Amino acid sequence: MDRIRRNERLAAMTRILVESPNKIVTLGTFCEMFGAAKSTLSEDIDILRNVFAQFHLGQLDTVTGAAGGVRYRPVPSAEDAYAFVKDLAQMLSAPGRLLPGGFVYMADILATPELMEKMGAVIAAQYYRAEPDFVLTMETKGIPVAMMTAKALGVPMVIVRRDSKVYEGPAVNINYLSGSGGRVETMSLSRRTVREGQRALIVDDFMRAGGTARGMVDMMREFSVTVVGVCVMAATQEPVKKRIEGVKSLLVIEGTDEADNTISIRPAAWLASGAEKGK
Amino acid sequence: MDRIRRNERLAAMTRILVESPNKIVTLGTFCEMFGAAKSTLSEDIDILRNVFAQFHLGQLDTVTGAAGGVRYRPVPSAEDAYAFVKDLAQMLSAPGRLLPGGFVYMADILATPELMEKMGAVIAAQYYRAEPDFVLTMETKGIPVAMMTAKALGVPMVIVRRDSKVYEGPAVNINYLSGSGGRVETMSLSRRTVREGQRALIVDDFMRAGGTARGMVDMMREFSVTVVGVCVMAATQEPVKKRIEGVKSLLVIEGTDEADNTISIRPAAWLASGAEKGK
Repeated sequence: MDRIRRNERLAAMTRILVESPNKIVTLGTFCEMFGAAKSTLSEDIDILRNVFAQFHLGQLDTVTGAAGGVRYRPVPSAEDAYAFVKDLAQMLSAPGRLLPGGFVYMADILATPELMEKMGAVIAAQYYRAEPDFVLTMETKGIPVAMMTAKALGVPMVIVRRDSKVYEGPAVNINYLSGSGGRVETMSLSRRTVREGQRALIVDDFMRAGGTARGMVDMMREFSVTVVGVCVMAATQEPVKKRIEGVKSLLVIEGTDEADNTISIRPAAWLASGAEKGK
Repeated sequence: MDRIRRNERLAAMTRILVESPNKIVTLGTFCEMFGAAKSTLSEDIDILRNVFAQFHLGQLDTVTGAAGGVRYRPVPSAEDAYAFVKDLAQMLSAPGRLLPGGFVYMADILATPELMEKMGAVIAAQYYRAEPDFVLTMETKGIPVAMMTAKALGVPMVIVRRDSKVYEGPAVNINYLSGSGGRVETMSLSRRTVREGQRALIVDDFMRAGGTARGMVDMMREFSVTVVGVCVMAATQEPVKKRIEGVKSLLVIEGTDEADNTISIRPAAWLASGAEKGK
């Protein structure tokens, strides 16, 4: 292969790093790919780090040590994260989204890859330090955001089912209290999905009382897995006291009014204060 | 902002194009962002096109006309697509994956973002010309691959549910024949998800007789939507005649043998012959 020029190499390196967030690519891999010296590649990485920072395109870290190399994380700036969630709040406040019973229609947003990828990056940015081994969610609506969070964290996703399936093998079933009313329901997780001692990040689309998330925490206890965080796209303001503590939500649903046909939804305070500090 | 150098600009452009597959970015957007002339950016795009082609990193197209600009598609080479699916076949053939009843455990693979993103790119590459407006799937296991296919196509995903939900508004319910035995089941799709005259690509994880996919085709007829294709990750060889025609699958499950504890699974013939031609 011909020796390629720096600008070509930088484009190819960008494409490769961005494709595998939070995975360490060794300098050796790039050396072999481009036939360039390590010192040259170190300079390349310095250039990339600066250009990513300048255009708010994410974060490039050099990891030292035996398993060292370079790692890309799609971390948005606090301002960009806040602006994204504020836009979402505005989309979700459209009166046409109010459904009978005071529910807010969110299915379209939850199934738009671009939005879910950005949301996954906003959520993942909060949990890189916690080093989860997988992202846990409950079927169905939370799957896309959990998937994109897992992608940004460079880990697999694990899906809790409403009942055990023949094609998932032996499973652990538990009962949990769902909904504000406290109906008893069942959730099921295949035994081969996770291993004792792993670390889980729970991600879901929506939380009211927190019963489902609480169920997932209980499920993780059955597997001797540590829960490092619980994050949802939107949580209702009421009840203030959820069945679980330490929950982060991106959006707060303050209330809906079927008589006036209004939805009141806003970014969570931690996002607003993050953006304020960043200024 | 300081004028930035070509190599920095190329890295930033790569990051931006790769983030939004199949979406046209106008040269004007890049002009404004980098303070560079259109002629300079056209040269940049030529460089990127070549480096992407050289390293098999996808395809960059210049789109002319009023809405013109540049567009990235993560199209793998026929050899890379075949190699990826062959690797999957090998992973899925591991004896430990055979479950009672002859089922193959696939849940872990279906929930690994990296694998699903590559699979989405392989599937999307077959349907760019068909110009689908959305990717349709049935909950639950097919959601990640449908999501990543939708991402590569730059369109939203739409999820058919097993029953209608209060938080999805008015829905159309239909009955369909599921499983080889032909059990009657119900599927439900929110009325506000799709519009008359749109084009759907159906993507799912698994097909035996094709009853579920057939149900989705019938559902699309209720919405006056054209189905431009049906693609699944894996289809069983038997029955040869499915309840629906024109199905593409990446993998063919030739059979499982519980006595010998073996799974026989291979890439579909169209992938193998594509790779052969590409040589």
